[in-house]
Order: sequence, then C-alpha cells, then structure tokens
Amino acid sequence: MRTPLCDQLGIEFPIFAFTHCRDVVVAVSKAGGFGVLGAVGFTPEQLEIELNWIDEHIGDHPYGVDIVIPNKYEGMDDVDLDPEVLKKQLNALVPEEHLEFAKKILADHGVPVEHSDEDALQLLGWTEATATPQVEVALRHPKVTMIANALGTPPVDMIARIHDEGRVVAALCGSPSQARKHADAGVDIVIAQGGEAGGHCGEVGSIVLWPQVVAEVAPVPVLAAGGIGSGQQIAAGLALGCQGAWTGSQWLMVEEAENTPVQQAAYAKASSRDTVRSRSFTGKPARMLRNEWTEAWEAPENPKPLGMPLQYMVSGMAVAATHKYPDQSVDVAFNPVGQVVGQFTKVEKTATVIARWVDEYLAATGALDSYNG
Amino acid sequence: MRTPLCDQLGIEFPIFAFTHCRDVVVAVSKAGGFGVLGAVGFTPEQLEIELNWIDEHIGDHPYGVDIVIPNKYEGMDDVDLDPEVLKKQLNALVPEEHLEFAKKILADHGVPVEHSDEDALQLLGWTEATATPQVEVALRHPKVTMIANALGTPPVDMIARIHDEGRVVAALCGSPSQARKHADAGVDIVIAQGGEAGGHCGEVGSIVLWPQVVAEVAPVPVLAAGGIGSGQQIAAGLALGCQGAWTGSQWLMVEEAENTPVQQAAYAKASSRDTVRSRSFTGKPARMLRNEWTEAWEAPENPKPLGMPLQYMVSGMAVAATHKYPDQSVDVAFNPVGQVVGQFTKVEKTATVIARWVDEYLAATGALDSYNG
Repeated sequence: MRTPLCDQLGIEFPIFAFTHCRDVVVAVSKAGGFGVLGAVGFTPEQLEIELNWIDEHIGDHPYGVDIVIPNKYEGMDDVDLDPEVLKKQLNALVPEEHLEFAKKILADHGVPVEHSDEDALQLLGWTEATATPQVEVALRHPKVTMIANALGTPPVDMIARIHDEGRVVAALCGSPSQARKHADAGVDIVIAQGGEAGGHCGEVGSIVLWPQVVAEVAPVPVLAAGGIGSGQQIAAGLALGCQGAWTGSQWLMVEEAENTPVQQAAYAKASSRDTVRSRSFTGKPARMLRNEWTEAWEAPENPKPLGMPLQYMVSGMAVAATHKYPDQSVDVAFNPVGQVVGQFTKVEKTATVIARWVDEYLAATGALDSYNG
Repeated sequence: MRTPLCDQLGIEFPIFAFTHCRDVVVAVSKAGGFGVLGAVGFTPEQLEIELNWIDEHIGDHPYGVDIVIPNKYEGMDDVDLDPEVLKKQLNALVPEEHLEFAKKILADHGVPVEHSDEDALQLLGWTEATATPQVEVALRHPKVTMIANALGTPPVDMIARIHDEGRVVAALCGSPSQARKHADAGVDIVIAQGGEAGGHCGEVGSIVLWPQVVAEVAPVPVLAAGGIGSGQQIAAGLALGCQGAWTGSQWLMVEEAENTPVQQAAYAKASSRDTVRSRSFTGKPARMLRNEWTEAWEAPENPKPLGMPLQYMVSGMAVAATHKYPDQSVDVAFNPVGQVVGQFTKVEKTATVIARWVDEYLAATGALDSYNG
C-alpha cells in the first residue's frame, strides 16, 4: 500500500491514526503509520508537555497534530479572540434551562455533578482563539510534519504560517464543495470523511463520498475516512482513488489508549446499529454510541441542543463524569465512535492492529488479482 | 472481475442491475451483466407479458426477477391471503385524514388528483398474497435463473419451491443478523445493502456493512449494494469480500429506461446530499430525492406516515401523478434513488455504462497493483 503520499511524508504505510492519546501516536508512527494527536482537549501548556513526551519516544518518525476551528458559530459573529473574554461571553449565552436539564439527566443516573472550571475551559479548544496558540506550540516541534483541521477550511493566514514552517496542512470534509474550498485555500491533503465516521460527520456514505472528493480536488491527495477498521477497508479506499486512510475509532480499542475499560467494554459490545448522529455533546452532528443522554436530547418535550461551542459547556459535565465515574455514567457517557465499532471485539496492541491491517490489505488485493484471471 | 459467482450463474461480469424496465434487463444481460426485473408494480398477468418480451429479446442470457415480501406488517397479523379480500381490509385501515392531507399537498402544487383503482392495486405487490403468484409466473420462464426478495427473508416454502425448479434465491439485508436469517433459511445469495442505497435501506454504511455480512454468512456469496455507480465502487465491494455488485440507481439514467426526462433531469441535477431516508411513500424508510412531499410528511404538525403497506395507498396517487403529470408534480414526485445520484450528469446507453464500469474497475485494480510495487 505504498502510495505517493508515503514517499512525500516518509512513512511506510498510509495509515493515519487520529487519537487523543500520546502513547497511541508514538505506537502508530513507530509501526510505520502516521500518528495524529487531537489537541482540542489541551491548553497550549498541556500540549507542549504532550508533544515533548512524543518527541522523546517516537524516534525519527514524523507525526501530526489535529486542531478544531469551525468555519463559523451561528449567531456569534462578534466573538472575541481573547480566550478569557470569549469564555465569559460564551458562559453568558448558555441558558439556565439547559444546564438544569443536563444536571437532571446525570442526577437521575446517580452520577455526581461537578461543573468545574476545567470542564468549561476544555470547550475553548473549539475556537480559533485557542487553536492558534496550539498551532504555534505544534510548529515548535520539527517532527510535527502535518497539522490537520477537523472542521472547516483553516484560515488562510494560518495555512500560510504552517507552510512557512515547512509543514503540511490537512483538513477534513464531508462534501465535494467543502473539499473544493480546502483545495482553493491551499490545503495540501484533503480528508474525505463519510457519514459512517465517529465524531463530527456528514450524511453521505464513504463509498459515495470518497471518489467524488478525489475527482473534485485532483491532483491534491485525498485520505479516506469514515468506516475504516481493517485492511480490506483500506484497500476499498485506495481502489476509490484515495492515497491513504484516516482512522479514529480503532485507536480507542488499543492497549496504549487511555480509554476506560468500561468504555472499551461498551465499544466491544456495540453493533454498527448502536451509533447515532447526535448534536447532544458538541452542538454539531457527531456520531457516538446511542444512550440515555443522546435519547434525552432527542425527545420532543426536552430542550433542544445548543449550537457549537455552547452545547459543550452543557455536556462538558457529562464528559467529565465519563472519565471520573465510568461505572456510574455508563448510560450517559460520551462515547464518540464510528459505525465500524461493530467490528470490534477486543483490545489489541497498536502494532498488532497495524500488522493485521497490512496482512488484510494484501489478502484483499490478492483476491482482486485472482478475479482478473 | 470474474468471481466464482460469474461461473455459477454463467455471466461475464458480476454486475446485477435492478430495474423496473424490461428493456434495461435485456440490455444489461446482453452486455454481460445480470438484469433483474422488479415485479412489484405488475399483476401476474402483466408480469407474464413482460417476461415473455424479455425472453424474446435477451437471447441465451439469464436474468432475474425481484419480488417484495416484508417479514411482517405492524398491527396486521390477520391479513387475508386472498388479494381481493386483503385489498378491502387495507382500504378500511387508511385514515381519511391521511388521504385528505395527501390530496392537499398535490392540490397545493397544481397536480390533478385521481385516486383510481389501479393505484390502490399497485400497492398489493408488497405482500405475500400477491408475490406468490408473481413467483409462479417467473418460474414458468427458464431464463429466470434467480429470484430475489427485496425485504426480509422469503418464506421457507417459497425458497423450497424455487429450489425445486432449479433456480437460485437471493435476498437483501441491511445487517449481519438479517443476513444470518437469510442464510439459515437457505438463501443462496445475500445482498448486503448499505444505507447509501436508493429505495428501502438501513442506516449502516456500505463500507462497514459489506465485510460484516461477508464474514457472517461465508461461504454464501454476498453482493455489494448501496452506493455503487462506477467500476471503482465495484472494486471496493470486491476488495471487501463481496462477489459482485447489486446496483439500481444507475439504471434510472440509461436510454433504455422508461423514466421521464423530468425525473432524469432531477437526478442529473441532484447532489449526494439531496436524498433523504423517508417513510412518506412506502411506510418503511426508503431513500429518495428530498422534495416538498417528503418534507410535508416530516413536519411535526402534519400526519405521520402510516406503516407498510398502508402508506402506499396514500402515496400511490403521488406516484401516479409522477408518471401522468411529470411537469406539474416535479416538487412532489416519488424519486427513489441512492446517494450515488451525485455522480450522475447524463443519460447513457446501458452498454456504455457496463463497458465504462469494466474499464474503471481495471483502472482501480491497476492502481492497487502499482502500490504493491
């Protein structure tokens, strides 16, 4: 599976692994793939610590950092770029009704509620105000050879800044028109993410979306995302013209991940029909396990989810509870994952997964060869 | 793309084309694929005429017939198997409010309303009572080598009857558990249909669903369905372990199809984001172009769609209008199609499509070969 992108980035396999865990980043890159650290949960100071740790452990392998800058926030044209001012502005926009409803859901499930400052701070990673310092931190680390934006086209001055430092810019999209905007803005790698994906996703399935994006932005390389958790699925992405695979859900199910055993058990048990696109955590449609939290925000008689980033100021307490009280919060936890969750039955070593995917890929392409007689 | 299934069925390419048009069945089979006639719209007498015509024009090539027998109808445990009795039973179950609402939508768009007997009769193809005579008609035609059921597992006695006549039984599914039921009942070919598909479909995307179904029913051969409209997409299906592709949307856009120019123009214009899974036509979730009919049945203040087969007794008048008054009914027409509609830009000859798909397939597998160095 050595595509031109492998040579460009100096990697063995075009397997990009999005994860919030530094250990997974290191394990993937050392196994021949390309680890990408999701920075959204970190302050610039925390991110610096994470990247230093990765630098120390990853050897000569490259890796990436993923930030989140949505194109716009509805009804929030005048947001301040100073994080402290912005935080106060946002807090003032969250209706008390929503906070009370969220607390009630948690209380009904016996989950202790602590809406601490840390939870509120976490949401601020979803803005240009906080992403820009994250990018500056990342650029101080030479092994960070790619910076990806998970939502929307990165601002042009940010793209120029990253290019000036000799790094590559990637950006996710869910439609050919978004892909066009990315390419026009100078994005180097477009990640086409089908509706099967975990986290923020569109509604068009991967099998349809990928070739449309490939055709739209050629010769810009495209990564296939959404529904990839095997070598056969990587082969499908490459057959559809992509130059690699952007994967996420699988890395929740590796030994190096920090996910709790309770959450991993939930993923191992779930079928592909147990996920839902829900606005109940981030305010934008994101795929996750369906549970009593997501159902509560769907019921017509209850408050509707707020937009991004406000909804996370409400759901942040449930996310915090997921980590602090995994046993109690199992029915209301935030379990972002793609439909590929139905394939997972166990927790494996990262290197085992990569090796298996390579074997499966070769088996798949071998089968295709046999059909060509 | 010569899979073992090609040899089993005596065809050149494992491209299965579902269509309501006999001309397309003939054109596909003569081009090396396998045409499948959707029988749901025909009485047994009409079906006999269609199959005779196909037999005369298809040469020595085989073809298939697709019927619709849902597993169950909610709240209708005691339906009568006599079509005339059943029709009266069903008519009595349709609320006047729904009929009036449907007529109002059409009237608001200037579409003449004629709820004729023919429209009501058409719905009866969705039942075992009417599908059984269709199967008997099909079995009188030796070139019909496959009978497929579009919804649910066919009744065991029907499977036995078809096997006794030396024909193959296929059935669609949207989950591994449905696939298991098919295989256990003796279905010979399982069609795994992802949520991208036009018409009735589930929610799990093809890239995730296909390999799960392959693993579930092996060694029973699986066809990939949902989102296939190119040779690259066929290659993806085969890379994921399927032995062929079941396609539908593409055949609405060929010269041999009877679809109106108005409908074909709507498909050519639509993007992959312009479809919706809606219960507004058949009562079960089916993918179609979003328009003012589908939106009207979504609005919270309006009547909710009935179940299958009752909703079609309401929507039948809109379907009839689609055919009789294509220009007036453009905003309320029934346009079943998959997300792959975003790939369509023009109407082509059927043979041109098949030849293009074969070329595209070879280009895709050639690219994969080049990545293996």
